[in-house]
Amino acid sequence: MSMRSGRRLRLGMVGGGRGAFIGEVHRMAARIDDECELVAGAFSADPDRARASGADLRLSPDRVYGDYAEMARAEAGRADGIEAVAIVTPNHLHAPIASAFAQAGIDVICDKPLAISSAQVRALAETVEKSGVILAVTYNYSAYPLIREARRLVADGALGEIRLVHAAYFQDWLTEPLEASGQKQASWRADPKLAGPGGCLGDIGTHAYHLACFVSGLSPLALSADLASLVPGRRLDDNAHVMLRYASGARGTIRASQTAPGKENALTLDIHGSKGGLSWAQENPNLLAFTPYGEPTRLLTRGGAGLSDGEASDTRIPVGHPEGYLEAFATLYREIARAIRARRAGEPSAMLPVPGIADGLDGVLFIEACLASARAGGAWTRLGADETSSPG
Amino acid sequence: MSMRSGRRLRLGMVGGGRGAFIGEVHRMAARIDDECELVAGAFSADPDRARASGADLRLSPDRVYGDYAEMARAEAGRADGIEAVAIVTPNHLHAPIASAFAQAGIDVICDKPLAISSAQVRALAETVEKSGVILAVTYNYSAYPLIREARRLVADGALGEIRLVHAAYFQDWLTEPLEASGQKQASWRADPKLAGPGGCLGDIGTHAYHLACFVSGLSPLALSADLASLVPGRRLDDNAHVMLRYASGARGTIRASQTAPGKENALTLDIHGSKGGLSWAQENPNLLAFTPYGEPTRLLTRGGAGLSDGEASDTRIPVGHPEGYLEAFATLYREIARAIRARRAGEPSAMLPVPGIADGLDGVLFIEACLASARAGGAWTRLGADETSSPG
Amino acid sequence: MSMRSGRRLRLGMVGGGRGAFIGEVHRMAARIDDECELVAGAFSADPDRARASGADLRLSPDRVYGDYAEMARAEAGRADGIEAVAIVTPNHLHAPIASAFAQAGIDVICDKPLAISSAQVRALAETVEKSGVILAVTYNYSAYPLIREARRLVADGALGEIRLVHAAYFQDWLTEPLEASGQKQASWRADPKLAGPGGCLGDIGTHAYHLACFVSGLSPLALSADLASLVPGRRLDDNAHVMLRYASGARGTIRASQTAPGKENALTLDIHGSKGGLSWAQENPNLLAFTPYGEPTRLLTRGGAGLSDGEASDTRIPVGHPEGYLEAFATLYREIARAIRARRAGEPSAMLPVPGIADGLDGVLFIEACLASARAGGAWTRLGADETSSPG
Amino acid sequence: MSMRSGRRLRLGMVGGGRGAFIGEVHRMAARIDDECELVAGAFSADPDRARASGADLRLSPDRVYGDYAEMARAEAGRADGIEAVAIVTPNHLHAPIASAFAQAGIDVICDKPLAISSAQVRALAETVEKSGVILAVTYNYSAYPLIREARRLVADGALGEIRLVHAAYFQDWLTEPLEASGQKQASWRADPKLAGPGGCLGDIGTHAYHLACFVSGLSPLALSADLASLVPGRRLDDNAHVMLRYASGARGTIRASQTAPGKENALTLDIHGSKGGLSWAQENPNLLAFTPYGEPTRLLTRGGAGLSDGEASDTRIPVGHPEGYLEAFATLYREIARAIRARRAGEPSAMLPVPGIADGLDGVLFIEACLASARAGGAWTRLGADETSSPG
Repeated sequence: MSMRSGRRLRLGMVGGGRGAFIGEVHRMAARIDDECELVAGAFSADPDRARASGADLRLSPDRVYGDYAEMARAEAGRADGIEAVAIVTPNHLHAPIASAFAQAGIDVICDKPLAISSAQVRALAETVEKSGVILAVTYNYSAYPLIREARRLVADGALGEIRLVHAAYFQDWLTEPLEASGQKQASWRADPKLAGPGGCLGDIGTHAYHLACFVSGLSPLALSADLASLVPGRRLDDNAHVMLRYASGARGTIRASQTAPGKENALTLDIHGSKGGLSWAQENPNLLAFTPYGEPTRLLTRGGAGLSDGEASDTRIPVGHPEGYLEAFATLYREIARAIRARRAGEPSAMLPVPGIADGLDGVLFIEACLASARAGGAWTRLGADETSSPG
Repeated sequence: MSMRSGRRLRLGMVGGGRGAFIGEVHRMAARIDDECELVAGAFSADPDRARASGADLRLSPDRVYGDYAEMARAEAGRADGIEAVAIVTPNHLHAPIASAFAQAGIDVICDKPLAISSAQVRALAETVEKSGVILAVTYNYSAYPLIREARRLVADGALGEIRLVHAAYFQDWLTEPLEASGQKQASWRADPKLAGPGGCLGDIGTHAYHLACFVSGLSPLALSADLASLVPGRRLDDNAHVMLRYASGARGTIRASQTAPGKENALTLDIHGSKGGLSWAQENPNLLAFTPYGEPTRLLTRGGAGLSDGEASDTRIPVGHPEGYLEAFATLYREIARAIRARRAGEPSAMLPVPGIADGLDGVLFIEACLASARAGGAWTRLGADETSSPG
Repeated sequence: MSMRSGRRLRLGMVGGGRGAFIGEVHRMAARIDDECELVAGAFSADPDRARASGADLRLSPDRVYGDYAEMARAEAGRADGIEAVAIVTPNHLHAPIASAFAQAGIDVICDKPLAISSAQVRALAETVEKSGVILAVTYNYSAYPLIREARRLVADGALGEIRLVHAAYFQDWLTEPLEASGQKQASWRADPKLAGPGGCLGDIGTHAYHLACFVSGLSPLALSADLASLVPGRRLDDNAHVMLRYASGARGTIRASQTAPGKENALTLDIHGSKGGLSWAQENPNLLAFTPYGEPTRLLTRGGAGLSDGEASDTRIPVGHPEGYLEAFATLYREIARAIRARRAGEPSAMLPVPGIADGLDGVLFIEACLASARAGGAWTRLGADETSSPG
Repeated sequence: MSMRSGRRLRLGMVGGGRGAFIGEVHRMAARIDDECELVAGAFSADPDRARASGADLRLSPDRVYGDYAEMARAEAGRADGIEAVAIVTPNHLHAPIASAFAQAGIDVICDKPLAISSAQVRALAETVEKSGVILAVTYNYSAYPLIREARRLVADGALGEIRLVHAAYFQDWLTEPLEASGQKQASWRADPKLAGPGGCLGDIGTHAYHLACFVSGLSPLALSADLASLVPGRRLDDNAHVMLRYASGARGTIRASQTAPGKENALTLDIHGSKGGLSWAQENPNLLAFTPYGEPTRLLTRGGAGLSDGEASDTRIPVGHPEGYLEAFATLYREIARAIRARRAGEPSAMLPVPGIADGLDGVLFIEACLASARAGGAWTRLGADETSSPG
């Protein structure tokens, strides 16, 4: 249940102008629980598109900027300036923009992957630490209520010792060389300069990887990867197979593809331990199958019977009334807004499950390890995550 | 895709204070597409609760009213007064409140059932016609994108001549006499003075009935009903079985229960014709099974391949990213806001599929026919719908 | 697990020649557990077809008969004569054939509906009682392992007091007037002289009705029915809607259609009580959803965890290896063979869940009550079941 | 539809005595279509158990042998001797037994994996070729009607160029160290002397691999494998992750586990090409999802609309009447019986899709390549299949 208090968090946005996809998702998500208010933006490098986008959003023209650096400077100087910025640009700009706003003392909400190299993330982490701001990464799938519940089940030992972690993310929208047609979403994702070195890996593989870590509570020690560009002429990977090994001896796989006809947005997670297993699929996210070993499978439903106490705070409406992608995204926004408000009020921030800079780094390290392993003929390659996983 | 223009519609609300359920649903739905702005309310008959609810919602205290009549009067007198009111009270108040706002020239968005008797609806219809306002009824399930698509399939003849219409709505939250515990949602729904003469019939049976009519494009000629209060001591029906006959010879059933353990919010629709059939279930609303007779079943998905052109305007995000209950509700709000804005601008309003006063009347006539048939030992009883089905 | 002992039961068959459907099903079912041996038959009224069918089945030519009466006489006179006969003809012949074999002291396995009138069944019952033979009716769906488990759950009180019983059986193969084409299966089913007074009612409605009674352990007191011939020119009903009332106050419905495009053999059962609910669908019969009220739904699987002890005897292979329609039919044959062998050995027959003459009568009374109610404009009509439900 | 002709094939069996699992499966499967007759057996190395098993099966005592070599000799010398032998022993005996019967001129039906080394298979292949007998390997899952249909869809180009082949086989029955308890099925499977060098790999991984090859029509060029014994103390692998590369550039994975709580017998197959995709799951085998790229997914059902002509010969009963594991196994037996009869009659044998010695070799080479790759730290390892895939 939402408990709003006081005024809304003043939010700005970089990217997300007309024709963009994820920017509008952020805005709808921010509105659902009414804890944020969009008041400024640098929506596009194209000044006309930027202005038009600002007008669509009913922003005051003096708070629609042509340039993110200018926006950071100007907003930092206003008494009513933004408190947080949402960064929804192509990947290569994430780090420089985040850095600029962090330096201006503005909290940061950034899309994934957080940057195009781990060096970039590490530099950004220093800036963020120095500035004291919060940096949250929108691994939005981690905010589905039953994903949170799955994480609690694992943490509570309901699965025993974890032995197997399988995450997969299949799509089919790049089955044909859509980028060659100039389609905006496909074009930047297929361009290494804008997307970074991972194609499908960065775009969706990182989501699957984050979910695997988030729910299992485990980070793999090493991986072996096979990357492919299955569509002729594609410059980045559009398919990834990854095998995982954990320090405990557990095993796992990550599979991601954007060329799998029949799969729309098929992000799935299966985790098995010595005492039980669970299974979840994003396309029907209000259902979690949980099997205590030796008992029948239980269908846990969002808002339903048999959930842990914590579940109530991740959801809004009664059982059987499906919540979807936007609601999970909204939960993330609600939690981020509260964390930022607490920080700004000098209050201790509750430990929230919102992904932070450490998760952002994990994602980029995953991409880099996959690329290194694939180049080395699938050699087992260690992941170098060196920080814990919480925001700010 | 949403195309916002100009300012938001100024919205008020009656009912929906702290502890209510559907009021917050209306507010979240209204925010998603950002075409409405809540600026006034009479949230509760209890002045403290009313004030506190207004404060939660960050309303100006002078626009938080203790009384709906006062609110209608005051808002109608302000230059910046509300343009529309959302009515989310128990059923017995729907008609008097709607009437008060309509008389004040304020457009009306009302929960279902629209009133507790058809006489009440007919009187309200006169008031509404005289005033010229729009009255929309939130049969929200009709705004699911694939329900809209199903309606188009039927209208386009893809099922041939309709022969069978089966709608069912099963829940289990009233399996025990929850109303005896004082639980707020259960209490008013079980009290004939507040809920009207139908219990389960009015609360969820009308949703199933509306969906059956909305998608099939047909209203039954007559029905035979069996109503029961399966939980000892319950004062209104908690279970309804209804058989339907259509002028064409087609047949159907409506089944509704609030005492069906294992069913959370299981609203389902199956329609079969001479050339095909379709099947839909609310708990996983992004899927519609469509079978042209003699061909394999096709799984139509929200935003997916093979849909009609119209589908795009009923949705927001890409295929495989589940939209849910709130998004369907939001679609209704978006369409209502646009219709009201058009009316106020003197523009011709596009023919929208938003349920209006005729649909509200149909729902109440359905309840009354069921009650009459049940009293008469299941005698076939004619329904008296006498108006067409569109808003305003 | 099957525990064969001694020799196979010697079996004869009437009907089921080349081109028939259910005869071959009986034969495959009888072979699976190897407790029966087909040694004689009167497969067709057409002598050539009868002979050819016998040869297909590798029977000795002297045991392939042109006439069931001759067969009953001849087999009763042989030392190695058949011990039981399977009757798989159109409905109008069930009773006379069963009577002939019962009079000859031969046990009877008969397809449903057992006869075309309750008067016929009552006369047959007398004959059977006099002769002391076993008469089993192949309500085969009742032998699915999870249907048996559902029955045990209800009997054990896991659902509390039963409040709702919904059974439905939808098919689409008669969506067009197939009988007009001369197709053999459709032709006799659409001819009142061969099928009896019920069309869809007798063919599949009786299966749904039997399942409802078998699992709930309850027979309804009265029903209200609406029958239709939705396909122009059809002489018997192809669609039935029936509302049920039980002495306890419980309610239910039976729905059956053979003109529902998209439904292949969609027999489903939902039962709800004061303490829980269950849901089963024939097309994926290895799954039973069971919800104790206030707990998550449990997916019970054939051979899986959490089943009662009795389940093991209803199945053959490990969990996850799907058993289907033939295996359920085979279970019935296995149980019938054992009951007959026990009777012939003068041993007490274990109480088996095999449907017997009382169930056969119930099915015919159901058809008759539906026809009477429909003729009387849906008037509530009492069912006259007057015997308990076990074979012989 | 089955068209039996003439007498049954005389069948013997080695292994499959009391307490065994797969032997009884073979026998039930052989009975369903009535084209085989079990007349002899060497059911157990324990003479008492062998005799008792023979008596259970109503065999003549002189045809119940204590030893397979004696059985091969004796049966080859009888005029009414067996024509084929089914080998259902632990893996290490498959090749020697098959060899003995082949040398005696008796056709062979053997469980998988065909042997415990490729050297053994190659030697056996020579013996088989010299003797001229048929050797069929019971990769039974390949006989599911919709798996056959999937193979035809791929062969007909409905998926375009194949890009991705994912097969998985998950079970949970070895989640605990069941072999330590002496449970018969677990014990031999966990013993390298009896099972061969692959545990889970040989037991179920080979099934998944065969299905991947059978449906895609492709054999991978190389693989990279990670094997694990996740249950402490287990001597053979109980979990396998394998990445595949094909000559065409296509990619794939095989995953197999016997320690995945919640998975009963979860064999699944997903294949994607440039023009479409398909998805199948063994636990509900009567359904195949087929998606032509850019169109809605079509649910193909066994016996249903839209299947190729060939499907009819793989099935028995109407659509919506589920066939299961035993029926698929029976189809294999029916086809093998016909092929053997044709060979013995000197008739040309129709090209059947029954797996033969080349498939048996492929399975063993798969196991060996996985073991080699795993030992070499996941190095990409070539598979050495050198024969085409058809029986005999």
